[in-house]
This record gives sequence, structure tokens and C-alpha cells, in this order.
Amino acid sequence: MHFTSEQRLDDGVVERTFSLGEIPGVLWTPGASSGPVPLILLGHPPLGLNRMYPRLVERARQATADGFAAATIELPGSGDRPALAGAEEARAGLRRAMEAGGPVGEEIKDALVLPLVEAAVPEWQAALDALLALPGIGGPVGYSGGVISVGIRLALVEPRISAAVLFAGSLVPAAMFEEARRVTVPLHVLLQWDDEGNERQAALDLFDAFGSKEKTLQANMGGHTGVPRFAGEAAAQFFTRHLR
Amino acid sequence: MHFTSEQRLDDGVVERTFSLGEIPGVLWTPGASSGPVPLILLGHPPLGLNRMYPRLVERARQATADGFAAATIELPGSGDRPALAGAEEARAGLRRAMEAGGPVGEEIKDALVLPLVEAAVPEWQAALDALLALPGIGGPVGYSGGVISVGIRLALVEPRISAAVLFAGSLVPAAMFEEARRVTVPLHVLLQWDDEGNERQAALDLFDAFGSKEKTLQANMGGHTGVPRFAGEAAAQFFTRHLR
Repeated sequence: MHFTSEQRLDDGVVERTFSLGEIPGVLWTPGASSGPVPLILLGHPPLGLNRMYPRLVERARQATADGFAAATIELPGSGDRPALAGAEEARAGLRRAMEAGGPVGEEIKDALVLPLVEAAVPEWQAALDALLALPGIGGPVGYSGGVISVGIRLALVEPRISAAVLFAGSLVPAAMFEEARRVTVPLHVLLQWDDEGNERQAALDLFDAFGSKEKTLQANMGGHTGVPRFAGEAAAQFFTRHLR
Repeated sequence: MHFTSEQRLDDGVVERTFSLGEIPGVLWTPGASSGPVPLILLGHPPLGLNRMYPRLVERARQATADGFAAATIELPGSGDRPALAGAEEARAGLRRAMEAGGPVGEEIKDALVLPLVEAAVPEWQAALDALLALPGIGGPVGYSGGVISVGIRLALVEPRISAAVLFAGSLVPAAMFEEARRVTVPLHVLLQWDDEGNERQAALDLFDAFGSKEKTLQANMGGHTGVPRFAGEAAAQFFTRHLR
């Protein structure tokens, strides 16, 4: 991991871009802190870090204000990274299914999501290795948002993840429901109730499936991108309860 | 309305019992406040004020700590108040339905809930008249918890209610779903996901039915009476957003 830029944001937060091999990433740390701080990994949809930056930096400001470091990396196949094999065909299949107004078949969900999960999760784990080796960053670690299947797999296989905020807003292959049953870390699941692009019943079934003894579902109005401000604050309070 | 006792709790909160005609009630006000404070009406299940007191006073402490007054009255048919006509038969019908393990029929729901709603809501409105006439209590007014159908009706017919926290934990007659569609105040709905005595799908359908543009569903684990502490705090924050 090597840093490629550093700037101080107006509220004192230090923002550093880095490369982890071929993978670009961003790290935000609080302007002032006494000793190592917990870390929140900021997941995001596969739209590219540049496009997601405004929302990511807003979430990072919340995290650093709460005394955490926050970090994110580019997803495989997004931004300037090479496309994942089969991704183009999978997206075309999704478009056809949506244009036909029908349900999205299991094969399309698998093709869209599973290769991304397989490729992304080891990268987030490698990023975690590198980030936790930095002075000033300790544990525990939370994971927040993004492609929910990536969050499920990471919560399942990565023991350093102590708590996760998941956003029920994307297609979930049946295989990931099975993994969800074995997740045990505390979860805070956000659902946009009136999100037309979302399968509400599938999101409720997924919440039911999680094996975690502490799990909260918070459903709000406002459409896919209209998560209300107070929902972000509730998610921040969840992390404060579990990471401090 | 006349006060029947007054005591100062250890945290400075003033607790006064009162009678409103035949109806006993309790009012809690913050120890110190500069000017009139908003009011939260504390709903409760029909088990009698004495039995509910420990949980009510805990909710009142939260409300007063947040700068609100809190008040509650005995439900018709509860505590020392005369039974509602037909209540005994309705409860027997419910017991038979539950012993048979079958669904609770619409007739039983209607008989159990509708007479209580009809009798209780005008009383809460009368209490509101009396409470808002007291020096030191202003608006806006929130309603919290208790029999959800009482909350639905009150939110619908009482324009002084500005926001409501509802607890999805009791039987809801079909007629109340129709009223729910016409409710427009901001709502925060609590659901205990693993509450065996609750009809989860009915609770989700009811949340969907509410006409309010701002509505949040928060589902937690912990069984019917195991609402986690952080869920109470989230409900308190909802009132702080809407009543201050």
C-alpha cells in the first residue's frame, strides 16, 4: 500500500488516496485523536469511486466526527479497473429482464453478483491487512453499505469485522441467503421501503435469514437514493455502540 | 381535572397523579424548564396503570430528560375502571382461537379492539384539553405506544397530534387498516421481529398502509417485551426531531 495524495478537509479530516497494488482507495482519519481509532470500511455500489466520491466523503465525515477512521477501495470492474469476465453479458441479461417487466431470474442474479463477491472480498481483506498495519488505526472494524452480497460474505469470512450496516438495495442470489444464515455479527439493515428497483419481500426474507442475535431493520421512505439524514445518524449510532 | 398527589423523583422530575372525572392519570414534568414544553402522551396495553407503572415511569424519565412533559391515563376497562361491555366474551374468543392454534378471526379482533378504541380515544382527547390548559405545558403533542389501534385513531382524528411512535404488537382489525391509510403525521413504528404473539406480516402490511410521507419501521430482536434500549433511544430521537 502506498499513499498517492494527502489533503486536509475543511473540518480537519485528513483524506489520503492510496494504491494497493492495482487497486485505488481512499482513507479518511480524524484531524485529532489520541491513540489508535476503530475503522469503518465504506462499501459502495459498482459505479466507480469518482462518481461515488460525494456520498463517500459525506459518510467519511460522519465516521471521523464519531472518532473513527474510514476507508474504501475501488470495486473490481469499476472505475478504471478492467471489467470482470462475463459482466457485460450479465448486465445485458438484467436489462432484458427489467425491460420485460418480469422477475430477474436466478441465473442473472448469480452472474451479476457472485463473480463480484468472489473478486471483491479478498481485496477488502487485503486492504484491511494494510490499513490495520498503519499507525493510528486499530480495531474494531465495521463494514458499511454497498453491494449487500459483498457485505454478507465479508461479515461471514472476515473475523475482524465486528458489526455491519447493510443496505438492502440490490439483487441477492439464493446462495447468499445461505451465507446470511451463518452471519453472527450485529447488523443494522437499511431498507428503502418505496424503492421501486428493490425487491422488498426479498429484503425482508434476507433480514429474517440473518443468523445474528442482534439485528435491526430500519425501513424508511424516500426512494433508492433518498435515505433520510436521520437514518444515517441511526447507522452511525449503531457503529458507536459496537465499535467503541 | 384535579391533582391527587405530587412527588419529586430522584432526578428532579415532578410526578403528579390526577383524576379526570372518573379516569385516573399521571403527569410527569421536567424538574426545570424555561417556558411551556411539548407533551408526549404515553399509551400502554390494557393491563392497568399500576401494573404498567415501572415501564411508564422509565419512558417518562426519557421524555422529561429530553425536555418534554409526559402523561398517561387509565384505559377504559382497565385497572379499577368498570369493564367494557362484551370484553369478557371477546377475550374468551381470543383464548379459544389461540388455544386452537388457528388465526384470530376478524370478528374476534373487532370485538376486542373496536369498543376499546371507541371508548378510549375521546378520553385521550379530553385529557389533552385538560393537559394543554396547564401552565408549563404547550405543544406540539406526540403519542407513543400502547394499543396500536388507539394510536391510529388518535393520529387520524386529533389534529393536535404532530407525530406518533407506534408499537406493532397487537391485533389490528381490518377497519383500522382503512384508517391507517388516511394517517398523515410522521410515524416511527416499532416491530419486535421475533415476537411469537404478533402477526409479523400484518404488521408489515399495516406499515405499508400508513399514508404518512415520513414513516420509519424499526424491527428488532428480543421478543414481545424485549425492545432493546437503543430502540427506545431511536424513538426518543424521533420525538426530538418532530416536537422541538
